Amino acid sequence: MTTTLAGEDIRAQIESRVQRVFDDRVARSAPYGAEYTALWEAAAESVRGGKLLRPRLLVEMHAALLGERSSRSRVDDDALIEIAAAIEILHYAFLLHDDVIDGDAHRRGRPNLIGLLRDARPDLGTKAAQHFSSTGAILMGDLLLSTVHQMFARLDSDGTARSQLLDLLDHTITETVAGEYADVALSDRAITPDLQTILTMTAQKTATYTFEFPLRVAAVVAGLPAETEAALAAIGQHLGVAFQLQDDALSVFGDAAEHGKEPYSDLREGKETAMIAYARLTSAWHAIQPRFGDAALTARDGAEIRDHLRRCGADFYLRHLIDERIIAARSTILAEATPLPAAARETLLTLADRIEGRLS
Amino acid sequence: MTTTLAGEDIRAQIESRVQRVFDDRVARSAPYGAEYTALWEAAAESVRGGKLLRPRLLVEMHAALLGERSSRSRVDDDALIEIAAAIEILHYAFLLHDDVIDGDAHRRGRPNLIGLLRDARPDLGTKAAQHFSSTGAILMGDLLLSTVHQMFARLDSDGTARSQLLDLLDHTITETVAGEYADVALSDRAITPDLQTILTMTAQKTATYTFEFPLRVAAVVAGLPAETEAALAAIGQHLGVAFQLQDDALSVFGDAAEHGKEPYSDLREGKETAMIAYARLTSAWHAIQPRFGDAALTARDGAEIRDHLRRCGADFYLRHLIDERIIAARSTILAEATPLPAAARETLLTLADRIEGRLS
Repeated sequence: MTTTLAGEDIRAQIESRVQRVFDDRVARSAPYGAEYTALWEAAAESVRGGKLLRPRLLVEMHAALLGERSSRSRVDDDALIEIAAAIEILHYAFLLHDDVIDGDAHRRGRPNLIGLLRDARPDLGTKAAQHFSSTGAILMGDLLLSTVHQMFARLDSDGTARSQLLDLLDHTITETVAGEYADVALSDRAITPDLQTILTMTAQKTATYTFEFPLRVAAVVAGLPAETEAALAAIGQHLGVAFQLQDDALSVFGDAAEHGKEPYSDLREGKETAMIAYARLTSAWHAIQPRFGDAALTARDGAEIRDHLRRCGADFYLRHLIDERIIAARSTILAEATPLPAAARETLLTLADRIEGRLS
Repeated sequence: MTTTLAGEDIRAQIESRVQRVFDDRVARSAPYGAEYTALWEAAAESVRGGKLLRPRLLVEMHAALLGERSSRSRVDDDALIEIAAAIEILHYAFLLHDDVIDGDAHRRGRPNLIGLLRDARPDLGTKAAQHFSSTGAILMGDLLLSTVHQMFARLDSDGTARSQLLDLLDHTITETVAGEYADVALSDRAITPDLQTILTMTAQKTATYTFEFPLRVAAVVAGLPAETEAALAAIGQHLGVAFQLQDDALSVFGDAAEHGKEPYSDLREGKETAMIAYARLTSAWHAIQPRFGDAALTARDGAEIRDHLRRCGADFYLRHLIDERIIAARSTILAEATPLPAAARETLLTLADRIEGRLS
């Protein structure tokens, strides 16, 4: 592969490849009626504007791993962007089913696919519009999950690489779905919300597909040995858990104007996070518990719970957990035994810094 | 491929291959907690006991197409059974998401996966048990849809055959999902329930994956030309629509003890069928309409609506639609221009007879 891919160019290429997948489906939707076309158009609209964190990580790590020897890649630029787009679409498909499961019609302050579909048909009445829009999100998730597999299965690469990538895709989907199921089991009180369960769930639900997957795909595509892939997997797990814990912290202690999430939405949903598991073990819990998971939680209630969480040391504890993961990531990145070229170490250290200081 | 596969042997082999997929997942579920293991075990239980209509059709048609020349197949027995199992698992995955969308906890008189998961956790309370069990069905559908793609993507066959089969899988999933979306759009009153829309929906939702798909896969795997595949596609569409219309007829006029469905469940759900589209155009509709789609419909109400449907000629009309499709299928099967060997014609005619006279 050539070394032409960099910065804004990468973002634009991934974005346009993702849109091409949706445009192609819109173009082939005519035999299935106007509602089906509208479904794909709404999906194409709602997939736009993402941060492209995961696909960019793949492309950047691939470049950092190969450096000057980029011609040794097992795929060309075009196939690399294809895999990157598939990774972004997988992320979007996970979000769709997550939103159906949580009954959410918004994400990051905008209507999500469910919201777009629902708002497009006020004539149906509330109940039917809700059912029709969540059905649309279930089925679009199915279509996109299928599309992602098709993209991987038809990759222009040798059979061994394709088979390794299919293994990774399988592993990633299994972990993510299992993590999602554990998350729902926690909020439905089907399992006990102890700290270890929550951290395992966090790793499975978020860390694997957000960091481990793009990093390992980069190693496989670059044709590097299993030890490199294993090191990147470990680093990806550390960074991924830190990333999610930062997300939990921001949701409660962060600046909503910056992070873009509904203030205190995690508290309103009764989300079982590491911070909450800690708070349960303190005397502050009796003051938090009555309003935790209350859908009608006001901003004032949220601020009060936030203060209780601070006073009992939950934010300090969470910061400690994040630090631990960032430190573990950094030591693995820097360890002499870790088989990574200097440019890859640089990229990963910058990523660790960004996660540590993230505000949004 | 050899010619050892026949009758009960086929059924047993498909069943055991399907179970092997589930057993393998149960065996690999330990890292994801007891609930995740229980989810796979419940799915393994609920997938058992199916009629295996679709996978058997593939294996039988493959044998009929090749006859003595079975060694010319592009796959061996093992790979053929693998595809057959994948087709059955795809069917099951569709049912799971269909049941989530319809809010059904039963299928054919037994608890479905949702029912099994819900009944296993009475301790959660009704609301949480419902949410947890339908989440399990959404996520299991995702896992199985992924599994089906993995099975197709890794088929032991030449790259051209694999790519043709991936095309067929993509086409089939698109049609089925689009048909499902149209079906829900009909019941949520998002589109008008006219006859043509309903027949198109029926073809897309049921005919494509139940008949067209196994028949075309058989042609591709047997290495037959595109004209054979096209003829089988057309025959599959005719038979598939007839099959679904028979299902609609049985649900209202059939013997529940024989067909195993909840009596009048289609009327209770307000399912928009061809028969209902016809009845809407008659004077009987004013007597049917008030109780159509009433979740509290009694057996007596159901019997009354059935009598109205009979009196207005809806059953006669439905029989006419079925006959049309069976006749169209038979003429295509028998046409001299249709490129099918005698054994394949025989198999298809027997199938048409069975659909025409089906009672369950």
